[in-house]
Amino acid sequence: MLLEHINEPNDLKSLSIAQLEELAEEIRNFLIEKLSATGGHLAPNLGVVELTLALHYLFDSPKDKFIFDVGHQSYVHKILTGRRDQFDTLRQYKGLCGFVKRSESPHDVWEAGHSSTSLSAAMGMALARDLKGEKNKVIAVIGDGALTGGMALEALNHIGHEKKNLMVILNDNEMSIAPNVGALHHYLGKIRTDRHYQKAKDELNQLLNKIPAIGGKLAKTVERLKDSVKYLLMSGILFEQFGFTYLGPVDGHDLAQLTELLDQASRMPGPVLVHVITVKGKGYSPAEADSFKWHGVSTPYKIDSGQMLKVVGPPMYTEVFSDALMDLAEQDKRIIAVTPAMPGGSGLIKFAERYPDRMIDVGIAEQHAATMCAALAMEGLKPIFAVYSTFLQRAYDQVVHDICRQNTNVVFAIDRAGFVGGDGETHQGVYDIPFLRHVPNMVLMMPKDENELRRMMKTAIDYDDGPIAIRYPRINGLGVAIEKEMKPIAIGTWEVLREGESAVIAAIGPMIPVAEEAAELLKREGLNIRVVNARFVKPLDEAMLLQIADEGLPMLVLEEGSELGGLGSAVLEFYSLHHRDGMHIRIMGVPDVFVEHGSVKEQRLEVGLTAEHAAAELNTLLPRIRKRVPGQA
Amino acid sequence: MLLEHINEPNDLKSLSIAQLEELAEEIRNFLIEKLSATGGHLAPNLGVVELTLALHYLFDSPKDKFIFDVGHQSYVHKILTGRRDQFDTLRQYKGLCGFVKRSESPHDVWEAGHSSTSLSAAMGMALARDLKGEKNKVIAVIGDGALTGGMALEALNHIGHEKKNLMVILNDNEMSIAPNVGALHHYLGKIRTDRHYQKAKDELNQLLNKIPAIGGKLAKTVERLKDSVKYLLMSGILFEQFGFTYLGPVDGHDLAQLTELLDQASRMPGPVLVHVITVKGKGYSPAEADSFKWHGVSTPYKIDSGQMLKVVGPPMYTEVFSDALMDLAEQDKRIIAVTPAMPGGSGLIKFAERYPDRMIDVGIAEQHAATMCAALAMEGLKPIFAVYSTFLQRAYDQVVHDICRQNTNVVFAIDRAGFVGGDGETHQGVYDIPFLRHVPNMVLMMPKDENELRRMMKTAIDYDDGPIAIRYPRINGLGVAIEKEMKPIAIGTWEVLREGESAVIAAIGPMIPVAEEAAELLKREGLNIRVVNARFVKPLDEAMLLQIADEGLPMLVLEEGSELGGLGSAVLEFYSLHHRDGMHIRIMGVPDVFVEHGSVKEQRLEVGLTAEHAAAELNTLLPRIRKRVPGQA
Repeated sequence: MLLEHINEPNDLKSLSIAQLEELAEEIRNFLIEKLSATGGHLAPNLGVVELTLALHYLFDSPKDKFIFDVGHQSYVHKILTGRRDQFDTLRQYKGLCGFVKRSESPHDVWEAGHSSTSLSAAMGMALARDLKGEKNKVIAVIGDGALTGGMALEALNHIGHEKKNLMVILNDNEMSIAPNVGALHHYLGKIRTDRHYQKAKDELNQLLNKIPAIGGKLAKTVERLKDSVKYLLMSGILFEQFGFTYLGPVDGHDLAQLTELLDQASRMPGPVLVHVITVKGKGYSPAEADSFKWHGVSTPYKIDSGQMLKVVGPPMYTEVFSDALMDLAEQDKRIIAVTPAMPGGSGLIKFAERYPDRMIDVGIAEQHAATMCAALAMEGLKPIFAVYSTFLQRAYDQVVHDICRQNTNVVFAIDRAGFVGGDGETHQGVYDIPFLRHVPNMVLMMPKDENELRRMMKTAIDYDDGPIAIRYPRINGLGVAIEKEMKPIAIGTWEVLREGESAVIAAIGPMIPVAEEAAELLKREGLNIRVVNARFVKPLDEAMLLQIADEGLPMLVLEEGSELGGLGSAVLEFYSLHHRDGMHIRIMGVPDVFVEHGSVKEQRLEVGLTAEHAAAELNTLLPRIRKRVPGQA
Repeated sequence: MLLEHINEPNDLKSLSIAQLEELAEEIRNFLIEKLSATGGHLAPNLGVVELTLALHYLFDSPKDKFIFDVGHQSYVHKILTGRRDQFDTLRQYKGLCGFVKRSESPHDVWEAGHSSTSLSAAMGMALARDLKGEKNKVIAVIGDGALTGGMALEALNHIGHEKKNLMVILNDNEMSIAPNVGALHHYLGKIRTDRHYQKAKDELNQLLNKIPAIGGKLAKTVERLKDSVKYLLMSGILFEQFGFTYLGPVDGHDLAQLTELLDQASRMPGPVLVHVITVKGKGYSPAEADSFKWHGVSTPYKIDSGQMLKVVGPPMYTEVFSDALMDLAEQDKRIIAVTPAMPGGSGLIKFAERYPDRMIDVGIAEQHAATMCAALAMEGLKPIFAVYSTFLQRAYDQVVHDICRQNTNVVFAIDRAGFVGGDGETHQGVYDIPFLRHVPNMVLMMPKDENELRRMMKTAIDYDDGPIAIRYPRINGLGVAIEKEMKPIAIGTWEVLREGESAVIAAIGPMIPVAEEAAELLKREGLNIRVVNARFVKPLDEAMLLQIADEGLPMLVLEEGSELGGLGSAVLEFYSLHHRDGMHIRIMGVPDVFVEHGSVKEQRLEVGLTAEHAAAELNTLLPRIRKRVPGQA
């Protein structure tokens, strides 16, 4: 075993190419085995084994900066930089992070989780290096999918203009999470697959070399012709147009070729783009056969068969959304689904198969997706923008400026709202309430269970007065029986789930069971707690809130989202704006820190989103509550 | 006069090209005259006179959709669609909007204010048209500067892929607001200026046609060669690579050529990009000579001399920022300024002249700018991201995910925070508090006057514990004497500006004089109001807030920003989280609507941000306040 002797990148430097190849094999087996227990981003990491080896073999990390776009393909980098022994804890609470993490190692120089940031990071590091008069290399590794993200294109444009010394490695595996979309992809496909290009290049060079030297105009023209042809047939003309030197494509699993080309690239001045062709899932046949399924594996699997462990339980909210959308789309031809490269994660596969014309995958392009939805809505269609809470952050301005300001009938299906588990801090869906709630015209809902999600879908489709959003978590539903009929819910109405006169807990989504449990705990103390499903974060149920004020009840607001600017703040603002003084209100949510990876349960525990804590918070209003206990007042 | 007979686009259809040319001249004179009184976006509109005439002459608005990117170049469109007589009210309260406005006319089909949205809008409208089986044309007009915005590139990529029938008119005037930045600009420059391209194209075609027909391999190679050369020399290869048919460049002031090419473009299937070369400020020599200065004119001017009316008054906050930055940059070599295409508006011109190496204009690319700042900070520099509040919305995800999550020392200089006057609802800086306040690690300040802005600059430069932001308004300072020394302010400290024991008004920035005035009004009623400068929106001055609670004082929180999620909410949350029950708090800010154009004063009046209203709000706590009047308790 070579691997057990590799504890830092320097341990690679003396190896031969043959030994590196052997090591690549060992790393693949290591990954396949370790991830079979923990889950994780298997296919992307199998695709970059040789590439990562080549980088650490040739260059000098951390002096030379490796910037991994998204960062979920950094496992091999972690193995080579002293973290091999921590893989049993991958993505687990207090364990190894599934993304680049600066606190883990000095070799981790740039963190991400969202895509398309690496080129901007590289530009910043190259600028700083030059201003400080230093000499290190800056190398960004970006996938072909991430390259369609607007900010990556902004950076490409700026880097090409400034002619900074930096290297971009285009890790081209024809996949982002879903198959890529867009002209850029088509363009890369042409380079990748068209062998004629290489052949034509050779032929033309031969041909042009045979043209006899002739004087005057014709000679000059032919000279220009040669340049043009060279340019064109280099095939990287798009990147050349942006100001990069283009090298490749090279087989990303051929260590000899790869190291040679990267070495060559590192000696060139100005920005260089190295086009590396890799196979996602390389070396593990189930993953090679279905790299989509094996992109991010959330369950253990059997290595031999590739069989993934089935999770038993009620359907995930994503599936409930998916089914409801199918039911609605059949009746309402205005419905059109839009996704930024997440058809699988967002539950749109069935829809895409059934209604290919009404399904638009724009690639990683949240901004474009949002604004396009505004235009679709303006023309009378009913766009459903299916997007993860954390990725909707990318389209905040488009939500404000295009969708809400123009008051267009866009439906937001915000998946993964709240804690997301193993993906950790870059993916937590805890800010959508604070960043959507203050935007005029927005309606924002969260369901308590599967049926309410279905009803909210119907509510949203029927609503023609502007934008409306449903947020739902990345967890299983409660397992309630699904009602086929989807009855719309009156906008801005909350629901009393449990009667009580001692105090009120207003909660949303997965915090409702926590509220119920807290109510049970307090019942033992003789208190009757009213539990309210505060399903509309905006608009609030003003009538119910005023009634609670009239009753003089203390209140706890409970949400799995940022405590600052969340539902709790909305309630506080409401009473203040309505001059209802002297209310006694506690708010509980996610405190003002970034919450790291772990299970959702562990994340809740860490921030105190528990029934015990909720009961204790209400108990801080004890004298007030005690007064209200029937018979004691 | 032809112009007085043009009341709708149909009135153009029967005109000859010569008459259109005459009309263009009349429109120019009209614009130059009208704007000399009202101000407005003169140079951009003078640049598109012929283009707009050509569009309305050839096509059938509003059935055919004209989508103007940003929309400040829509004046000619407004003149031609029945709004000629409203130009005396341009950008004034309840008057004609300076951008496209759907409520003004059915010919206004898409609103903007922020750049780079038009291609996404066009794609949405084209998709909807096709799904509905309709036949209208969709035409986006986008400037070369706006094309560098990431979302425009996302859209270009998607449109090219889907091959939708739509026309993009690239209005190439070598200018966005500042001279453009980026490889894309360089590329357009090459097309625009290099006459050799056209010549070489002709020569090569002649040459290739002379090559005798030869059989076999060589013939095929030459055939491919012809294609390649044609491709390359069409010059629009970048757009062709994205999947567009490229036409042009054409002189955007030559109505005959322009109408011919646009007509031809409209008959082509799939996406077409028409490259139109225009001159910003065309026909008015002062504006042609300095289109930068004449982009957006905020004051009246003398037509003959082009002399702009000087506004007398204290320096704008932007100038104060500019001077402070110069002072600080001399002492601290870590300082580097970053702007997304707004060096003028953000007050960075002097800095750029003095420190060209430390000034980075990335073009219209807020996302890239923000993330690049994170990387610069990580490498030990002190990036100052100078950006308008409204445009920072574009970089929300980058603020959360890259800057704050990685806790990097980025300094935000957030200009135009609060109401912005004539630019209206697309540019109001009223959301930065709600969208920044909930992000962990962020420090957020607002100064009360010029000196405090300088002190906050020093505070921010000295602060090495993470991101820190200063927001300041688009108004004149108070005219206080500038202190050369900039003493840093302790993080999270508020300041009592006026003592009082009846109640407290906590206010920020330009609301502080309003608070002082309200205090004066209430003094007449015998009340002593304490006025607090709540200069840190985050972190709050916890000690002072707790003291106010201990004193049991009623409190009004006053801000020129969204009432939802703003400073007022922060105060309410603080007391709730600290279990300080029974507080009596009023919050006053911008209510949950989009506020249209007008003067800042009119905008404040509209939403009730006045001393009278503030006093009245505190009076709703009257019994409580009265109790506190000395001698009456």
